[in-house]
Amino acid sequence: MGKNLKVGIAGLGTVGAATARILIEKSGHLLARSGCNFELTSVCARDRSKDRGIDLSEFNWHDDPVALAASPDIDIFVELIGGEDGPALDAINAALDNGKHVVTANKALVATHGEMLAKKAESKNLAIGYESAVAGGIPVINAIRDSLAGNKVSRIFGILNGTCNYILTRMEKDRLSFADALTEAQSLGYAEADPTFDVAGNDTAHKLAILTSLAFGTKINLDAVYIEGIENITPEDIASAARLGYAIKLLGVALETDSGIEQRVHPTLVLRSALIAQVSGVTNAVAIDGDEVGEVLLVGAGAGGDATASAVIGDLIGIGFGQVRPVFGRPGSSMNPHVQARLRAHEGGYFIRLNVHDHPGAFAAIAARMAEQDISLEHIVQHHEDHDADSGRQSVTIITHETMEEHVRVALSAIREDGHIDNEPQMIRIER
Amino acid sequence: MGKNLKVGIAGLGTVGAATARILIEKSGHLLARSGCNFELTSVCARDRSKDRGIDLSEFNWHDDPVALAASPDIDIFVELIGGEDGPALDAINAALDNGKHVVTANKALVATHGEMLAKKAESKNLAIGYESAVAGGIPVINAIRDSLAGNKVSRIFGILNGTCNYILTRMEKDRLSFADALTEAQSLGYAEADPTFDVAGNDTAHKLAILTSLAFGTKINLDAVYIEGIENITPEDIASAARLGYAIKLLGVALETDSGIEQRVHPTLVLRSALIAQVSGVTNAVAIDGDEVGEVLLVGAGAGGDATASAVIGDLIGIGFGQVRPVFGRPGSSMNPHVQARLRAHEGGYFIRLNVHDHPGAFAAIAARMAEQDISLEHIVQHHEDHDADSGRQSVTIITHETMEEHVRVALSAIREDGHIDNEPQMIRIER
Repeated sequence: MGKNLKVGIAGLGTVGAATARILIEKSGHLLARSGCNFELTSVCARDRSKDRGIDLSEFNWHDDPVALAASPDIDIFVELIGGEDGPALDAINAALDNGKHVVTANKALVATHGEMLAKKAESKNLAIGYESAVAGGIPVINAIRDSLAGNKVSRIFGILNGTCNYILTRMEKDRLSFADALTEAQSLGYAEADPTFDVAGNDTAHKLAILTSLAFGTKINLDAVYIEGIENITPEDIASAARLGYAIKLLGVALETDSGIEQRVHPTLVLRSALIAQVSGVTNAVAIDGDEVGEVLLVGAGAGGDATASAVIGDLIGIGFGQVRPVFGRPGSSMNPHVQARLRAHEGGYFIRLNVHDHPGAFAAIAARMAEQDISLEHIVQHHEDHDADSGRQSVTIITHETMEEHVRVALSAIREDGHIDNEPQMIRIER
Repeated sequence: MGKNLKVGIAGLGTVGAATARILIEKSGHLLARSGCNFELTSVCARDRSKDRGIDLSEFNWHDDPVALAASPDIDIFVELIGGEDGPALDAINAALDNGKHVVTANKALVATHGEMLAKKAESKNLAIGYESAVAGGIPVINAIRDSLAGNKVSRIFGILNGTCNYILTRMEKDRLSFADALTEAQSLGYAEADPTFDVAGNDTAHKLAILTSLAFGTKINLDAVYIEGIENITPEDIASAARLGYAIKLLGVALETDSGIEQRVHPTLVLRSALIAQVSGVTNAVAIDGDEVGEVLLVGAGAGGDATASAVIGDLIGIGFGQVRPVFGRPGSSMNPHVQARLRAHEGGYFIRLNVHDHPGAFAAIAARMAEQDISLEHIVQHHEDHDADSGRQSVTIITHETMEEHVRVALSAIREDGHIDNEPQMIRIER
């Protein structure tokens, strides 16, 4: 009984293997939950002999994902190859051209080609599911697109990269350096051999660009995301922030301002009393500020084969229910233009940490330069334990009230020209 | 352009008025998001002249919700009257009998009549949306039914009543008594004049029974929920728990055990380092343990007109998308029987607080009685600050490792018979 839907999977890494396992081992559960028989018919991967923990020998093996995507053997094409162009994009295009629904975990591809693909899918009444592309198993795409769709979103922000959150958590808990925490994350499989894409913030930016489009109904604009990574955060920054009641997280933040939409990825101070500050290790979290619902926070596993496959299966079930709807919450043809806010106009509080030459009047002079720019200070603290007698420098930490970023930059230039500091000050935005 | 869907609302309290406002003021937004024109045509409320902040004079007013539900003026009937029987049930039956989709925020009605209504709706291919009935604006129903449907859920638990969470938060933060915190909650509109339904745990039980059915695919069984309220929690319990690293929350917990499904509502110790322990005030939170995804936690406003209306509107949009699916995640005709676990067989840790007669050997005798029942202790602490010289009693707090509830009860009886205590010991379950 039940509708039969044939599924092909291209890419059998941890997510692909877990998706195949669930389709095989839980067919009865999925039928009860969806009224559909999801029949895995075809797979595609480079290495046929690799042990994936399940027997896939009986399925149709393809060498070419494009051939799999176009094959009459499937109704739904699951793309788990990765890469924003190349075979993944060719295969998704082939699937849509041949009338197949698509499910993908490929955030880079969705962030880059989402609008084009949405238009193509919608013109053929096909679905593209990408719940697994953002925050792994957390059902954030469905939440924004369906459940919270009556809200006008003013801001969406979150911890979208488990690697960075793990590193920052370890730096906080045991005062590890960034380098040591990264090495540990690599040894545990939480960070790639080349970790740049994660720690520099690019992975977070891809996910944020997708969330922005969904939340604000605008075209995806990955190039408009301002990106800073966590490489320059020190255990001293984290300890200074903690003393003032803040944790440091790599956040992706998108919000509507008077001048347009601001998208930023950067290390951020959040109040330690806020729930998001308590989200530790590889866990992800997404907060949505809606005008009706207030703030909704969704927390869960942002990566891992099984958790990501959970979202892939959720998309398959949605397709099984006949759930074909605009890919980004409104038709691709009517997505609003993305008007980018001027980042220099960002208003917010700042955490500033300076290594100040230890001579009389320095403290007063710094405060005066801040006042000149109309920057009002919440805290200005000189930490005795950070005083370095050898270098004749001491650490001064400042928390500002809401101000303009350009004012802070002008004040810091003046402080530097005055000769109170000679290295680059640390400056981290605060999100409330 | 777009499909036209006519909506009737019965019940114009805060949720009904907010739903009407959103339909009127955000029609363009809803059309862009759903491709549907949701046209409010008809309303029903006792008092036509009451100021609800919006002009509803132009709509068809009905005195009888059943007449509204059956009216040819509507495609979707929104029930916001409340009450598990009576007009609400009559009107929903009339709506389904006349081929209308239903959206309701009525947890008591869904918990009591959900299965019957699901069968009726499914036989006519109609939807019943009840996202707003559990945890207000938090999209927990859709998350379990759709996004996480590939998971076998082992446990679902949460803070489902904002009144209780507000009271416990105030008792913790300022050591208020239960009575004082309740009075404050009433003065702020967070608790009813007769707060029994909330503080005794019944409201939480209704929501839990619905979540249990969705999570485990079983028939709703409200009678099988074990219920304890928060009336007997003291500031001393909360302070003792805090000293040992725990917070006290009123949780609804449902889990699968060897003997069946256990559903319980009671004050619960949770580790203060757990996110759910940080959920304060009127905020709600639901945690879902899935075999693929791990733990997902959803946090947000559990009550309030606008937040609840956000969920009502989400259900309307789902219906607009043609989303008609089994009401409880599987057809009403194939919901599994609810096999109730024996609660006495519950295994878990316990927090026990005793007022012990202060004489030599009492402490050792208590520990011995625990050991006789094979209860292994994580902590046993005598708090000096709780020593009461006048009464000759002191407070002893015990945290046990996992044990059986009946063993704890036997040990406490023996301690009482030994004459070490003469009042009822406090005993609170721990959830990890």
